[in-house]
Amino acid sequence: MRSPIPDYLAEALSHVVSNTSGAPAGYIPELATADPRCLAAVFATVDGEVYGAGDVDAPFTIQSISKPFVYALALADRGFDAVLDKVGVEPSGEAFNEISLEDGTGRPLNPMINAGAITAHSLTGAEGIDPAGRMARVVGGLSAFAGRRLETDESVWASEMEHAHRNLAIGHMLRSHDILTDDPHTVVEGYIRQCSLLVSARDLAVMAATLANGGVNPCSGERVVLAPVVRQVLSVMSTCGMYDAAGDWATQVGIPAKSGVAGGLIGALPGQIGIATFSPRLDPHGNSVRGVSLFERFSSDMGLHLMEVPPAARAVVRSNHVVGTGPDAVRVLQLQGGIRFAGGERVVREAVETLGAEPRVALDLTMVSSVDDVARRMLLEVARRLTLEGHDVYLVDPDSMLPDPDPGDGGRVIVVADLDTLDPQRLPST
Amino acid sequence: MRSPIPDYLAEALSHVVSNTSGAPAGYIPELATADPRCLAAVFATVDGEVYGAGDVDAPFTIQSISKPFVYALALADRGFDAVLDKVGVEPSGEAFNEISLEDGTGRPLNPMINAGAITAHSLTGAEGIDPAGRMARVVGGLSAFAGRRLETDESVWASEMEHAHRNLAIGHMLRSHDILTDDPHTVVEGYIRQCSLLVSARDLAVMAATLANGGVNPCSGERVVLAPVVRQVLSVMSTCGMYDAAGDWATQVGIPAKSGVAGGLIGALPGQIGIATFSPRLDPHGNSVRGVSLFERFSSDMGLHLMEVPPAARAVVRSNHVVGTGPDAVRVLQLQGGIRFAGGERVVREAVETLGAEPRVALDLTMVSSVDDVARRMLLEVARRLTLEGHDVYLVDPDSMLPDPDPGDGGRVIVVADLDTLDPQRLPST
Amino acid sequence: MRSPIPDYLAEALSHVVSNTSGAPAGYIPELATADPRCLAAVFATVDGEVYGAGDVDAPFTIQSISKPFVYALALADRGFDAVLDKVGVEPSGEAFNEISLEDGTGRPLNPMINAGAITAHSLTGAEGIDPAGRMARVVGGLSAFAGRRLETDESVWASEMEHAHRNLAIGHMLRSHDILTDDPHTVVEGYIRQCSLLVSARDLAVMAATLANGGVNPCSGERVVLAPVVRQVLSVMSTCGMYDAAGDWATQVGIPAKSGVAGGLIGALPGQIGIATFSPRLDPHGNSVRGVSLFERFSSDMGLHLMEVPPAARAVVRSNHVVGTGPDAVRVLQLQGGIRFAGGERVVREAVETLGAEPRVALDLTMVSSVDDVARRMLLEVARRLTLEGHDVYLVDPDSMLPDPDPGDGGRVIVVADLDTLDPQRLPST
Amino acid sequence: MRSPIPDYLAEALSHVVSNTSGAPAGYIPELATADPRCLAAVFATVDGEVYGAGDVDAPFTIQSISKPFVYALALADRGFDAVLDKVGVEPSGEAFNEISLEDGTGRPLNPMINAGAITAHSLTGAEGIDPAGRMARVVGGLSAFAGRRLETDESVWASEMEHAHRNLAIGHMLRSHDILTDDPHTVVEGYIRQCSLLVSARDLAVMAATLANGGVNPCSGERVVLAPVVRQVLSVMSTCGMYDAAGDWATQVGIPAKSGVAGGLIGALPGQIGIATFSPRLDPHGNSVRGVSLFERFSSDMGLHLMEVPPAARAVVRSNHVVGTGPDAVRVLQLQGGIRFAGGERVVREAVETLGAEPRVALDLTMVSSVDDVARRMLLEVARRLTLEGHDVYLVDPDSMLPDPDPGDGGRVIVVADLDTLDPQRLPST
Repeated sequence: MRSPIPDYLAEALSHVVSNTSGAPAGYIPELATADPRCLAAVFATVDGEVYGAGDVDAPFTIQSISKPFVYALALADRGFDAVLDKVGVEPSGEAFNEISLEDGTGRPLNPMINAGAITAHSLTGAEGIDPAGRMARVVGGLSAFAGRRLETDESVWASEMEHAHRNLAIGHMLRSHDILTDDPHTVVEGYIRQCSLLVSARDLAVMAATLANGGVNPCSGERVVLAPVVRQVLSVMSTCGMYDAAGDWATQVGIPAKSGVAGGLIGALPGQIGIATFSPRLDPHGNSVRGVSLFERFSSDMGLHLMEVPPAARAVVRSNHVVGTGPDAVRVLQLQGGIRFAGGERVVREAVETLGAEPRVALDLTMVSSVDDVARRMLLEVARRLTLEGHDVYLVDPDSMLPDPDPGDGGRVIVVADLDTLDPQRLPST
Repeated sequence: MRSPIPDYLAEALSHVVSNTSGAPAGYIPELATADPRCLAAVFATVDGEVYGAGDVDAPFTIQSISKPFVYALALADRGFDAVLDKVGVEPSGEAFNEISLEDGTGRPLNPMINAGAITAHSLTGAEGIDPAGRMARVVGGLSAFAGRRLETDESVWASEMEHAHRNLAIGHMLRSHDILTDDPHTVVEGYIRQCSLLVSARDLAVMAATLANGGVNPCSGERVVLAPVVRQVLSVMSTCGMYDAAGDWATQVGIPAKSGVAGGLIGALPGQIGIATFSPRLDPHGNSVRGVSLFERFSSDMGLHLMEVPPAARAVVRSNHVVGTGPDAVRVLQLQGGIRFAGGERVVREAVETLGAEPRVALDLTMVSSVDDVARRMLLEVARRLTLEGHDVYLVDPDSMLPDPDPGDGGRVIVVADLDTLDPQRLPST
Repeated sequence: MRSPIPDYLAEALSHVVSNTSGAPAGYIPELATADPRCLAAVFATVDGEVYGAGDVDAPFTIQSISKPFVYALALADRGFDAVLDKVGVEPSGEAFNEISLEDGTGRPLNPMINAGAITAHSLTGAEGIDPAGRMARVVGGLSAFAGRRLETDESVWASEMEHAHRNLAIGHMLRSHDILTDDPHTVVEGYIRQCSLLVSARDLAVMAATLANGGVNPCSGERVVLAPVVRQVLSVMSTCGMYDAAGDWATQVGIPAKSGVAGGLIGALPGQIGIATFSPRLDPHGNSVRGVSLFERFSSDMGLHLMEVPPAARAVVRSNHVVGTGPDAVRVLQLQGGIRFAGGERVVREAVETLGAEPRVALDLTMVSSVDDVARRMLLEVARRLTLEGHDVYLVDPDSMLPDPDPGDGGRVIVVADLDTLDPQRLPST
Repeated sequence: MRSPIPDYLAEALSHVVSNTSGAPAGYIPELATADPRCLAAVFATVDGEVYGAGDVDAPFTIQSISKPFVYALALADRGFDAVLDKVGVEPSGEAFNEISLEDGTGRPLNPMINAGAITAHSLTGAEGIDPAGRMARVVGGLSAFAGRRLETDESVWASEMEHAHRNLAIGHMLRSHDILTDDPHTVVEGYIRQCSLLVSARDLAVMAATLANGGVNPCSGERVVLAPVVRQVLSVMSTCGMYDAAGDWATQVGIPAKSGVAGGLIGALPGQIGIATFSPRLDPHGNSVRGVSLFERFSSDMGLHLMEVPPAARAVVRSNHVVGTGPDAVRVLQLQGGIRFAGGERVVREAVETLGAEPRVALDLTMVSSVDDVARRMLLEVARRLTLEGHDVYLVDPDSMLPDPDPGDGGRVIVVADLDTLDPQRLPST
């Protein structure tokens, strides 16, 4: 059988290929001469499968799409406090190249506008690192997100340096507020080099999937940054990633995203997927015309909108029944599916309402597909309270969905591999 | 057993009760005299369970928390186009009472600032409805969200009308741009009446849960608005709900939310939970001090942040094995857990890689807990492609997780209740 | 002989008559239907002569040209402090209908924008005056500036009231900041009535001449306001009168001015002239196209620019000679022309350098055309110092250019009608 | 006799010496260590007399006071169009270091803010001049205004260069908009050198007096710039010179002015006086505290406010009488004082009303102190019209107040030295 996903992607491209509105970025000749016909879309799953259609390996410069990843590196290298001291997280409602510094402090409003991204660049690497070391860290970090060594497009870099006056202005302004502490020319030079790294749509999809996967590159298996960093980065992408079109994007697409002036566009949906598109023609907001169109389609076709209420799941409590009788009776709660807070609450409720008569209680996790941290704590608290009320509590957990369960504080659970183990003859005496 | 959830809520309240910073809203005497000691927190699940601690039934005026719900009513009553023509969706980065009209058109930037909320109020009910009818629609609609009949606090209303000059200014400004088409005084009067409806923290949690539940009140079972309306409302809450603290909230709490000047605060996490808190002392942004603190704790304790990457789920393909041999051989893919796009992709991949040899293929959904729309379409497409390649395709689906399956276009599936049915003797001839 | 001034005005009109760019104000039908061909220019001198060309008596509504005059009335009625507390004097660099309130206080930035003008209207008459009384004061005051009873155009007034939402918005906003203390509807109604007063270009020229003449209507002779009020009003006109074209006007025309949306435009040059033009077609700033063109011509042709350095005057000391000899010798300083600070300084210098030998000193003012206050004080100080050094000091002042001269503090002057009086035989003994 | 003017200045200083509020500019150590006790006030008249009190020769850096003078040089060197293309004339209502560029074009709003001043600096000298040549032009030009060779304070310059990031930011921003066309670092370096020139209060007063004197240094006699340049510069100083306190200054002081961060402050009143003060402590607007206080006193004491209505002058027509009878009768208009437009109009009116019967008319200018250009043209037009009506027209003008009078177009005047010349026997036959 042939996978329908590449077919779906190819079909999606066919719907936008005729849209030739917009124009490649024109501020430097190297971007203006980009082939406007280029078109690609790539999905990368959180377990490392990559699907693509179109010019998935065509190289182009990453530009502003580097911003969330370098922000992630800065958070990882310097810690949240040091970075938040220097770059805010508030949407500016303004275009990408607005200066948007906070009154008084001069702190850039967020790391997705140039001022914030330049500052984030300056915060990568250890404090006091020299420019070469910082650049090595940035290239190395972005390469880790992509899963392959990225290279600079030297001609784009040189060309952008010649037209870097606005960014140099921003750099000096930041230096005047002590937001930058190094020479602003050096920092801006590094920032532009960061923006001039060559990527393909395939690379960008893997980079996005690394965010969607909580910081671990799903192809290489490398942990690039920790989960709290990813949460911060995705949050900022969701409110600030699309500049002055943030509200439109949030309502119509609903996927944390970032666009680049060379025509790239990425989206990352936590736990699900990284998406990238490439098409150089831009709309007046500076976002790829066809890229935006593709993302709208993907979001709608695939229910990827963050605010999509997920389908009502089958009840997490699959059955609640008693096995055996008298002192051997075991109350069994058979659970199923993924359990997060809402599922945990349902188990708690079932326990409150029905448990009590039988001396033994089993929580059967055999059909459970996932348990998040809060649900784990809720299940253990149920076990603890039942223990204190005099019950023996069993976890039927052949696949260790709840590893090393310890209810603490007077609670106790007995882990068993299957219900049959609860046969009275075979149970340990309590 | 006693549920640990109320205990958790009570403990959470105990952590914030000593924080007496901030002050009740002072712009009208009726709000200034609110009892600053009041404190409550309520959870309402999407299946209608309500947990609370503190003053869960203390009445207070809903104020700005009415905004997302009335926006929902406007969208429902007039349609998306008519409402979007008059109210934008872009964050303003400004305080709640900023005028923030779009240059030229005079369109309020979003429905969470007063200008947009007044406009949304004017767009409830059918076009041409009289003020009494519009008011009845608003009160009725909000009551449906809450699941009980809400009443106006007449003294707050009268007092706010006396201090309504800023809102009247906004009303006239909107009228001058033809954003309002009715008499601005009448509209503002209605808007203030909407804000003066009395609610409790319990009511607000149910209202929030109605959003989290896709528009159906989980207690009354009434569908109040359709799912696309809810998605729009939650999107706007996520970017514009917390005014000029939107970025802080998005990174630190990550739950679509809305606060009111009387001390209420709600959050709605799609598919999971509605949360409400009540404490009248406000911070300089106009948000309840203890409410913000409680939400930060809830988000952190319970992993409710929208950008939290969910725990790695057990593989959606529980097993892939062949039953029988020769022409009777059946390739069985046993699926489990909740299946959305990412899970669907995994099934597709498994099918592409392993199916082919056996003439019969069974997708076993017995242990599947949910299937969303895109996953449903992907499973059916797998079935269709397999049919076209000459396979017989079976769905083992005793609980109708995939009701009325029709792959279309040459595809065919045979629904069976269990694997045993696939015994060759009992199968229909193909 | 026929005066060349009407010829000059007629010729100036002939230069602009072919310019049909711009359009009458369109926000209410009554203004949109103004005859765009109307054209007039009027000069009124500070001694009451009026020259005109074109439709000098065509009636139109005064609109914003009422603003400086009503500001003058407010200053006169309530005093500077009370008015400055409520309305600032800073240019806003914004269009006329911008709200432009000071952050925090809500004080309108200046009295030439609507917010400030509405506030100034509310500050006319004694504190606590009722609306009818206030209106009577405004109409009476403007009529005094014009020298005839002005009447309201009731149809314009009614039409503007129907489209007054922006001004009502401003009124409510001002009320919300307690800048207005009365009902904002009543104040805005009065303000619009003020703007609907009918004037002709002739009236406006006389009104402007009243400002140029220090507050005394040069035709009627009535003192309408005191000189310090006029100075304040002209200062504010010079920085804020032309909205967002203030800088262009200041450099190219250099005459304190104010325009109205019905097509009027006035300028007042202190001590020299009031000018008015009328032509309904407006430029994008809301100023009369031909009016601006006429003022540019007048300023350039007539050297009326405030920053025009005046021609080098003939030395204020016409001659410095000694009459008589010995103890009868009189040192005579014959002065001439207008004496202000610079002229006074010249006299002082001459006195310091040359006086001393002769016991008697005469300051001959016969040919002096004006002496301002500081020059008067300087001349008297010279007299005082000479007295203290033992001189007899005479003022030859047949026309009382220096009435009641009293050098004070040991000084003494003897006023005589002509130099001959200084004949030693006829002098009083000292 | 001793001049009272230095006494007056000393007394004015004594009134402000106890005011120790404010602080020297602190952004570079060299300014922060200025002696805050320094205090000086200097008047320079348009005929070159200089009066001072206090530390009139203490050196300090000129800072922003260089802005109007360098703007003058740019206008002189490149012409109005070239300069206005790059720098506007609109007040910004903002602080001195605001960027305040026009939307879209990036044109600085005016030459008194840093962005405009940096641009003006770049426009001095001929197009294409090298940086050294430009610097020489600036230093030479400012020295010509001061009447002596000015030198750079190298330590202030070096220190400011180290803290020049905000100005460098502005420079790069201007370069990015092609407002600057040279290397922004070089331009900013030159600009800061311009600001680091050392001046004394005495120098500044002479520089201001050069403006007040229409562009001719009254001490050296050198014409530094032409009159239209001065008019432009004074206009811009009057609307933009005092930053965000422009309106306060315009109403309370009413003298075109400019302040510098080292504590200098100048004012120039066209045709009258240049004033400078020096005191390093600054108010929050960045203006010298005592300097502002001194200017308020000078303006008030000396009636120097631009909007001060000058004293009613003695009638410009001193007498109107007939000498002789019959065909020998001469109608004599004896004029006096300074004649500008208003005076010219008075003469015209007198001519219209009374001339006609007598065949000969004499305009006696013996007692006239000045005649400006428009008045000259009006007098000649009277003469022309009288000629055409058959009169002989005489100008009694012993001191050539109206040199080379030519009414043109059929007019004719006969210049005579005194009235006696009109004795019929001695008149030329007509």
